[in-house]
Amino acid sequence: MTTCYINGKYKPISKSSVNITDRGLQFGDGVYEVIAIYKDKLVDLNLHLKRLKLSLKKIDLKINLSEKQIENISLKIKKINNLKMGIIYIQITRGNQSTRDHKYPKDLKPNIIIYSINKNLDKMELLASKGVKASLYPDIRWLRSDIKSTSLLGNVMAANFAKKNKSHESILFDYDDNITEGNSSSIWIIKNNICYTHPVSYRILKGCTRDKLIKILRTNNLQFKEKTFSTKSLLSADEVFMTSATNFIMPIVKIDKKKISKGKPGPISLALRKKYISAI
Amino acid sequence: MTTCYINGKYKPISKSSVNITDRGLQFGDGVYEVIAIYKDKLVDLNLHLKRLKLSLKKIDLKINLSEKQIENISLKIKKINNLKMGIIYIQITRGNQSTRDHKYPKDLKPNIIIYSINKNLDKMELLASKGVKASLYPDIRWLRSDIKSTSLLGNVMAANFAKKNKSHESILFDYDDNITEGNSSSIWIIKNNICYTHPVSYRILKGCTRDKLIKILRTNNLQFKEKTFSTKSLLSADEVFMTSATNFIMPIVKIDKKKISKGKPGPISLALRKKYISAI
Repeated sequence: MTTCYINGKYKPISKSSVNITDRGLQFGDGVYEVIAIYKDKLVDLNLHLKRLKLSLKKIDLKINLSEKQIENISLKIKKINNLKMGIIYIQITRGNQSTRDHKYPKDLKPNIIIYSINKNLDKMELLASKGVKASLYPDIRWLRSDIKSTSLLGNVMAANFAKKNKSHESILFDYDDNITEGNSSSIWIIKNNICYTHPVSYRILKGCTRDKLIKILRTNNLQFKEKTFSTKSLLSADEVFMTSATNFIMPIVKIDKKKISKGKPGPISLALRKKYISAI
Repeated sequence: MTTCYINGKYKPISKSSVNITDRGLQFGDGVYEVIAIYKDKLVDLNLHLKRLKLSLKKIDLKINLSEKQIENISLKIKKINNLKMGIIYIQITRGNQSTRDHKYPKDLKPNIIIYSINKNLDKMELLASKGVKASLYPDIRWLRSDIKSTSLLGNVMAANFAKKNKSHESILFDYDDNITEGNSSSIWIIKNNICYTHPVSYRILKGCTRDKLIKILRTNNLQFKEKTFSTKSLLSADEVFMTSATNFIMPIVKIDKKKISKGKPGPISLALRKKYISAI
């Protein structure tokens, strides 16, 4: 039975619950992070904790745990659950409010949840060697995707559309027919040896894996541009890949009915994946 | 202590909780309704139950309770809690999923929550007699506001902006500077004796009070148009009001620093409020 940290206590996950007046449940009023555990390490831990702090600040939510304390709880959860591979999930909601109201008072006590989920991330290695299929879906999410909030129904609908189409991910396009990101990933294309991804804005999440990859590209003197690109450019790219905390760098070889790089993972995508994994 | 219906059981609200793996909590993956109890009646009950059913359908969520059963539970909750005035709150989430994943399996068991909150809706009468202040705020919500989902962080941020500005409501404007709706209401303007409100689309919720008011306007041979209007038209309207399940018809007499109808509720707004309340 998985052990979960909730508001200072360690409990079996089956006994870990929030009251029905929790604002996370009633309003999606909370933020979260997913951190991969791979090679027995918490991958990009500091980037995730920094982003969590930023998300909290953006929604005006204060907690009395430091980054160091969250790190220690995460490590303890990993140890108690004897987790070698999978994820640490962190969720913070604004807390319980008995009189349901969109407006919140200042004095609520946030609910803080941290637990681990066993996931075979090595399976991703096999997926990456073959590449995955993706589906195009309109970006119906809210216009502050820079905040990693749990108001995720738009992402859920996109992901389920992918599932129905036997795709690994949905790639989202906005009103101007530009690609924003995936339902839970950053999307990249390679054209003439240059990597492109959507610039940081309110419309995308500043991905931790995205950040790490940019560092790798810089270190290796590879060309990249943070620049919006259209659905058309996506479909005519030399290579397409996605980045996320659990997928690392995942080649996309088919989008709807269109094959990308002849239906096989491109050499640059695979090389970057290798570099990313070495850097863990 | 308020009694709450949760998954077939009646419990004190303090003991009513959902597991932390509930998709409503983790993904805002659920829908809800708020029904006013006024003059000892469930106001516009059938409209709300019909809309709940539609929201469930739109997010591909099936429950094994009929509209009639939900009505009976609501009436029972009202009775147990001896509620004369306030709201019935209904929330349905997709259920618990142990392996957190945007994609959901078909066989989850939804969590169904129904309870009541005591609210002095007569206080609204006093507010309406003076009119309320509103603030303008960008519409950052997701692009499927036609679904009454609990992924509400955009609405929460707008409502809290209103609170900070001592306003009753935020009025939301889109990229084209057109008014969509309020943070939890439909917005109406009156110009030259014609009522205007945003047409039904993915960008707005088809309000039950809005629907009821349209019927009243038709019955009384009053002119109205479902037509988008700009922020500029809003600020130069003869009268402005909002409609919602708990506000009924609420005159807006100030928007940011701009007085509307000389800072007093307009005669048509007040007459419509009277007609709406008589119709309950």
